[in-house]
Amino acid sequence: MTQLWAVQYVMSQASLPSANTSILVQFDALKDFIARALQANGLSPEHANKVASLMAQADLQGSDGHGVIRLPQYVKRIRAGGINVNPHIKVVQDKAAMAVVDGDNGMGHLVVSHAVELAIKKAADAGVAWVGTRNSNHAGPASLYARMPIAHDMIGLYFAVGNANHLPPWGGMDMLLSTNPIAAGIPAGSEPVIVLDMATTVAAYGKVKAKAKRGETMPEGWMIDRQGRPLTDPNRADEGFLLPIGGHKGYGLALIVGLLAGTLQGASMGKEVVDFNKDHVTPTNTGQAILVIDLKAFGEPGFFKGAVDQLVKDLRASERLPGVERVWLPGEQSHAKRLAYAQQGIPLAPVLVADLNALATELNIAALTI
Amino acid sequence: MTQLWAVQYVMSQASLPSANTSILVQFDALKDFIARALQANGLSPEHANKVASLMAQADLQGSDGHGVIRLPQYVKRIRAGGINVNPHIKVVQDKAAMAVVDGDNGMGHLVVSHAVELAIKKAADAGVAWVGTRNSNHAGPASLYARMPIAHDMIGLYFAVGNANHLPPWGGMDMLLSTNPIAAGIPAGSEPVIVLDMATTVAAYGKVKAKAKRGETMPEGWMIDRQGRPLTDPNRADEGFLLPIGGHKGYGLALIVGLLAGTLQGASMGKEVVDFNKDHVTPTNTGQAILVIDLKAFGEPGFFKGAVDQLVKDLRASERLPGVERVWLPGEQSHAKRLAYAQQGIPLAPVLVADLNALATELNIAALTI
Repeated sequence: MTQLWAVQYVMSQASLPSANTSILVQFDALKDFIARALQANGLSPEHANKVASLMAQADLQGSDGHGVIRLPQYVKRIRAGGINVNPHIKVVQDKAAMAVVDGDNGMGHLVVSHAVELAIKKAADAGVAWVGTRNSNHAGPASLYARMPIAHDMIGLYFAVGNANHLPPWGGMDMLLSTNPIAAGIPAGSEPVIVLDMATTVAAYGKVKAKAKRGETMPEGWMIDRQGRPLTDPNRADEGFLLPIGGHKGYGLALIVGLLAGTLQGASMGKEVVDFNKDHVTPTNTGQAILVIDLKAFGEPGFFKGAVDQLVKDLRASERLPGVERVWLPGEQSHAKRLAYAQQGIPLAPVLVADLNALATELNIAALTI
Repeated sequence: MTQLWAVQYVMSQASLPSANTSILVQFDALKDFIARALQANGLSPEHANKVASLMAQADLQGSDGHGVIRLPQYVKRIRAGGINVNPHIKVVQDKAAMAVVDGDNGMGHLVVSHAVELAIKKAADAGVAWVGTRNSNHAGPASLYARMPIAHDMIGLYFAVGNANHLPPWGGMDMLLSTNPIAAGIPAGSEPVIVLDMATTVAAYGKVKAKAKRGETMPEGWMIDRQGRPLTDPNRADEGFLLPIGGHKGYGLALIVGLLAGTLQGASMGKEVVDFNKDHVTPTNTGQAILVIDLKAFGEPGFFKGAVDQLVKDLRASERLPGVERVWLPGEQSHAKRLAYAQQGIPLAPVLVADLNALATELNIAALTI
């Protein structure tokens, strides 16, 4: 009999890049390089710095599929006219506890951080606030935005429509849904904050691409082909679909997240979603939404944070299944990376650094400082 | 190779009770019987009718694990002093877009419907509102509450802490988490409304108990034993744990749902959760939370509902995997049951009807009208 959980357990472990094969880069050097590249493509210094800081934070916390690795693609899209480098981001719907932000097809990082900042302000007054976006774009890892309210003693819940459809409805084959992620940021006291960031599919599509790049096969359960058979060769990914978590449940979650993050704000969902890997010109009309909950409205924040600390301690102290070294909390591994990479530098693959050097030459900007 | 999705597909199909082996009962007859039983145990006519209507609605939509089947257990708890039959349900925290409702250990159905009604009122003003509960109790299927806002052109998102811990943290063995469900109710135009109601575990614990009752084995993937091996004998359920959907992802979801529905409102979570199957006396301090989003704040509700209709049509029209008869939307099967059972009657298992007749005798009330 297969140890079902064991396969999944291994999947949940972080794959720390080996220091031997990686090039270490300081956070500020990475941020400054990204900002130079964006400014060279027409973003204002203020906008370029804001996007660069968020992209470098993605790498800092180990969300390396959503960090600087996306820079060449973003630049390609900007140069093709698919992104507005000088957007007028504005509120188009507004009540005490909600707003809709129209991103004017600007960089998603700018649009979403604008939305989160507004939601934090509104939640401070109303107790809770929902701010959604339309005409936004890919904004990097969901966790970046879900964790922003934490510094204000607030909870963040984040939903987004993914930028390419790889998921059919349950039992179907038409790829009408994306990996639509859910993220949550929860304040804690002395323990690291809890940050969940998950695609509603078993594997995010970026992980499939990474497997192909490394010449590895995928575990059964990530994808199926058009006969319903497990698909394990990532080079054949075009012949199949991602599987949702929990079968029909993950399909339902991906659908609800898409309705909340997309349809509700008048953003793309279903057939309207633009595959931004293949089409660099058509505005994506990406939608995201953040719910911010102010702990202060519910009582003394210290009480909540103390309860979270106790729960974290109880979960971590749980007796473990055979072969399990420790029980992790969501976001604990990212938290450890933030601390480690801030000290030692962020590990980048040599092939990525070569790509960035080529980009620097192309853009005629100073190369990444190693 | 196993057709992974096929196993899960079968799990997602409704098990319609066979008409041959079931006794058909009219909705009003069922509701009136439940109300009689609750009144005989000290609930006011108003409270008894409200709880009875919600419990009978659970059976009407096929959520039969959460309907009248729970009546004997509720009565047992009331008689043991574990439920306050005359609760003073009151708001203890309040801002424009949020409230915390203290249920005074009343029946959960009363506490949660109070919370949802308040959230609907607040959302009409603020656009969005969050109302959570503490000192509440088991309230039946999550979907009942998530769908309440729909009639007001509002979206409902519902979270609850389950009433017994059967889920350890990922890689662990201490059962510190429950099946903490998520439910969502989404308005539609001419299509049936979308209603998702899912435990964050692969199978809800009630389904394990049902398998044991029917002498069936569980599919691999529902539970594991303390060695991490698949557990398929439901009579050995005490020797293992439920598995979360998507492995570590479902663990993360169950944790976040518990923090939002429980900890945030000062309700039980983690070690504090009382197993209401084993302990009929200790107040459970159950927590639930509803988020209500008013479509009218986002624009013309007809626009949203039209987009939902189109999406539903696209999903339903998807090309299907071999052997799949149709693609379902979340809540579509429950919707069909609501219509069918309202006409033909609600099918109850003969053994359940016998239990209810015994209860009628014990309480000296008129039996269920068949």
